[in-house]
Amino acid sequence: MRRLPAAIERLSAELARLPGVGQRTALRLAFHILASGHERAHSLANSLESLHEGVRFCDRCHHLSAGPRCEICIDPNREAAVVCVVEGVPDLLAIERTAEFRGTYHVLHGVLSPLRGVGPGELRLASLVERVETEAPSELILAVPISIEGEATASYIQGLLRGRDLVVSRIASGVPQGAELEYIDEDTLGRALRARRIL
Amino acid sequence: MRRLPAAIERLSAELARLPGVGQRTALRLAFHILASGHERAHSLANSLESLHEGVRFCDRCHHLSAGPRCEICIDPNREAAVVCVVEGVPDLLAIERTAEFRGTYHVLHGVLSPLRGVGPGELRLASLVERVETEAPSELILAVPISIEGEATASYIQGLLRGRDLVVSRIASGVPQGAELEYIDEDTLGRALRARRIL
Repeated sequence: MRRLPAAIERLSAELARLPGVGQRTALRLAFHILASGHERAHSLANSLESLHEGVRFCDRCHHLSAGPRCEICIDPNREAAVVCVVEGVPDLLAIERTAEFRGTYHVLHGVLSPLRGVGPGELRLASLVERVETEAPSELILAVPISIEGEATASYIQGLLRGRDLVVSRIASGVPQGAELEYIDEDTLGRALRARRIL
Repeated sequence: MRRLPAAIERLSAELARLPGVGQRTALRLAFHILASGHERAHSLANSLESLHEGVRFCDRCHHLSAGPRCEICIDPNREAAVVCVVEGVPDLLAIERTAEFRGTYHVLHGVLSPLRGVGPGELRLASLVERVETEAPSELILAVPISIEGEATASYIQGLLRGRDLVVSRIASGVPQGAELEYIDEDTLGRALRARRIL
């Protein structure tokens, strides 16, 4: 039973391919865009068309960038000696929001996942090793997720860099601020106990 | 602190203007579109560009349509004698999904709402009265929402059509199927009691 014009069905189907957007939501968004008028639809279409020509990856750290080097890499106030290794750009942005970190990044664009067919070749690991060789940073902070895949990736990187003269560290895992211990998963709580600090 | 290329910031800002899409979700969607490649972005942009030229409103019932009359109005199996009045297209689609209704519709594109500045002039009421005059339907089902605004709209339409030879009905309000009475709001439960049926 199709009762809607093809143009709205088509837009709705395109929107439903976005992550977290179901059929019902897609149709609601399509109605909204229809009601907003052609100017708004045109403006959104324009942003989509110019997205890929305006965005590339930084040659050094693989963060999103408008030019060959990203804004963080060209910032003279960022310390090249400390490199924070992250799974993806959203994680980099989350760390930036803390305003705790003044070093540079290395974006792997994934973590090792045999189940999803992601091996070392799919990650930006060769360029990480090359960076360690040419830039000789003093510390590599492995800020990949606290998960089986994250741990596997962290171990793999440790193996790659064994014997080199640099500190390799891992972000702390434990009970997050404000969380009730009762509701924390047992893995996290176990880690928090094992990694307890003497006061 | 802007650390992302302008092209992705722009798309993200456009997406954040959609209903129910916050800043964080918009950025996540923009990353997804970036990762999906230019072809996908182009295809979505195309659907947006061609939306308004491919969709108009039915001259008779104001449902979305590809031509002057919508698919429901041109369907010879739908009874013109029964007209179901709805607030918007999503409500029409919801009623269609029940497969209970074989009549036609009249989409008001809103309900009366003095607070939001929606008066009778903003709704498709003149064409409703005209339809009643020219088509002389036997029944008008007011399927506008069960809410203060919906009731005001239903009363207003009743007033407009007073003295004419047609049945004006209202969809039933009561406890929805499967709901626990304990959690039903008191207005609905009160209505359900007052509208009780003798068995």
